[in-house]
Amino acid sequence: MAAGEFEFIRWLRGRIPPDSRVVLGPGDDCAVLARPGSDVLITTDVLTEGVDFRLAEVGGRAVGRKAMAVNLSDIAAMAGRPTAAVVGLVLPAGPGSRALAEDIFLGIEEVAKQFDVAVVGGDTNAWDGGLVISVSVMGETTGTGAVPRSGAKPGDWIFVTGPLGGSILGRHLNPTPRIEAARLLHQFVRLTAMADISDGLAADLNHILEESGCGAELVAEAIPIHADAVRLGARTQRSALDHALHDGEDFELVFTLSPEGGEKLSKEMPWPGLFKIGDCTKSGLTLIEKGASRALQPRGWSHEVV
Amino acid sequence: MAAGEFEFIRWLRGRIPPDSRVVLGPGDDCAVLARPGSDVLITTDVLTEGVDFRLAEVGGRAVGRKAMAVNLSDIAAMAGRPTAAVVGLVLPAGPGSRALAEDIFLGIEEVAKQFDVAVVGGDTNAWDGGLVISVSVMGETTGTGAVPRSGAKPGDWIFVTGPLGGSILGRHLNPTPRIEAARLLHQFVRLTAMADISDGLAADLNHILEESGCGAELVAEAIPIHADAVRLGARTQRSALDHALHDGEDFELVFTLSPEGGEKLSKEMPWPGLFKIGDCTKSGLTLIEKGASRALQPRGWSHEVV
Repeated sequence: MAAGEFEFIRWLRGRIPPDSRVVLGPGDDCAVLARPGSDVLITTDVLTEGVDFRLAEVGGRAVGRKAMAVNLSDIAAMAGRPTAAVVGLVLPAGPGSRALAEDIFLGIEEVAKQFDVAVVGGDTNAWDGGLVISVSVMGETTGTGAVPRSGAKPGDWIFVTGPLGGSILGRHLNPTPRIEAARLLHQFVRLTAMADISDGLAADLNHILEESGCGAELVAEAIPIHADAVRLGARTQRSALDHALHDGEDFELVFTLSPEGGEKLSKEMPWPGLFKIGDCTKSGLTLIEKGASRALQPRGWSHEVV
Repeated sequence: MAAGEFEFIRWLRGRIPPDSRVVLGPGDDCAVLARPGSDVLITTDVLTEGVDFRLAEVGGRAVGRKAMAVNLSDIAAMAGRPTAAVVGLVLPAGPGSRALAEDIFLGIEEVAKQFDVAVVGGDTNAWDGGLVISVSVMGETTGTGAVPRSGAKPGDWIFVTGPLGGSILGRHLNPTPRIEAARLLHQFVRLTAMADISDGLAADLNHILEESGCGAELVAEAIPIHADAVRLGARTQRSALDHALHDGEDFELVFTLSPEGGEKLSKEMPWPGLFKIGDCTKSGLTLIEKGASRALQPRGWSHEVV
C-alpha cells in the first residue's frame, strides 16, 4: 500500500462512471461483477521485493504462497469462493530466474491446492530490477451474495476472527485466508460489512466505517492479542495492544452484524475463535480502555519488512 | 516475455491438473473458464520500465494505454468481448508518484472507454525501483465460443488482419486491439485458430502450429509489410520482410480457417485489410520466396525498446 493510496482511490472512484455490469467497483476488497448465476468476484494484489518480502531471506516459495494468500484473503473478505488465478511475474534477469520462477510457482500451487483454486494463466518477464509478483484471483459469491464494506449500521456488533498483532515476526509470510470461516459465518447469519485486516485493525475497520457512514467504539480488553504482538512489543517498547490495533497483515477478518445476529453468533459459535471487540456507533472511532474513552487513530503500519 | 518463458510454461502446464471449471488453461492468449451463460475469459500482462517502455520518453499516459491495449489484444485473439479490468501498479517512490499514477490511469481510462471495459479495481504500491504495471482483463466469449490456438488443420488458410513490422518506431505504444475485427470475423465464418501478434508473426504463428500439431507454408509476397518495417529496415540493414516476419508488438491477429471459409472471406471481405498469407501443412514452417522454399525460423524479437 503506497502512501496516498486512499486519496488516489478516491480520485479514481470519482472518475469511474456507473456501469450496469458492475455491482461493486474500486474501493472494496474485491470488485463484484454481475453475471448469470452467481456474481463474479475479482481482486488483484502486487507484492514487491524489499517492501512485502526479502527474497534472499525467505525464498521464492514463500513469496508465491504469500502472493496467493493475500488475494484469497480479499475473496474471504467478501465471503466468496475463489475459483481461478492468473499470475504476473517480473523476475530479476539472470541465470537463476528460471529456478526462481519454479520456486514461486510451487508456493502458489501449494496455496491454490489447499483452497481449490485453478491457476489458469500468467505472464512472465525479466528485467534489471527486483522481483515483482502480481496475482489476480477470481471467485464466486456464496449464500446471499458478497459482503461489502458498506453495510454496517449504528448498533451493529463488531467481531474479529482471531488474535492480532506482530505478524511481521513471520506470520505475514504465511497467512491463512479465512475463506472457510467467512462462508460459514455468512451462511449462519447475515453479515452487514466485512474486510480483511491487511493494513491493521484500526485502519481496516475505519474503511468499513467510512464506507458505511457510521462510527465504532472498541473495548481494549476485548481485542484478542496475538503472542507475537507481546513479543514484538517487548522489542519496540510499544504496547501489545498498540500492535494488535495497528499492525498490518494479520489477514484475519473484521466484520459487523446486527445485535440479534451477534447474539446468535455468540451463543452458537459456528467458528472457533470469534471475538466481539465493540459496537458500531453513529460516528467517530473510539477505544474504551479501563473505563476511559479516547479517540483511536485509524492509522495502520506500513508493510515494512523488519 | 522473458527468455525461456515457453519452457517455463511447458513445465507449468505439466504440473497443472485438469479442472472441470477450466475450459482452457495456461498457454493460450486467454484462459477460458466455464460459466453459466457465456464462458469467461481472463488474461494478464505485465509491462516493465526499460523493457516495454521508456517512461521518461513516453510518459505515464502512454504506459497506461499500452498496458490496457495489450491485454485487450489477448481478448481479441479469442474473439472475445472485454468486460472488466483490474490494475496493479508499482510506482517509483517519490513526490511525483501520485501524478504518475493519475497519468497512467488516464491512459487506461482512454482505452477502457473506447472498448467499453469497466475498470473495477486495483492495487497501488511504491518502491525504490522502476515502474511496473500489471493489468488483468476479463471478458466473455462471443458467437460459437473462444477461438483457441489449437484448432488449425492441414489445408486451412492463414490470414492476418493488417500490415506488419517496425512497430518499435512507435506503433507498439498505441496499438489498436482487434476486438471488433475478431468478433465480426468469428460471426461471419468459423475460425479454427487465432493468436495476436505480440512476439512476431513467425513466432506467434508457430504457437498456433505447435498447439494445433500442424505446419504452415507462407508466401513472402503475400505478407503485408508496414511502412514502418521499410523505414526500420533502412536503418537496420535487414529486409522489410524480415521485420514483418519477426518484429513483435504489431498486435494484429493471425488466424486460420477452412478453405471454404477462406473463400467466403476473400469474396465478401467483412473486414477491410485482410491478407491471406499462406496455408497450413502437415508439419514444418516454410516460406516461399520468388518460387523457392526455405525453412522459416519461428523466432521473434525481444521487446527491446530502441
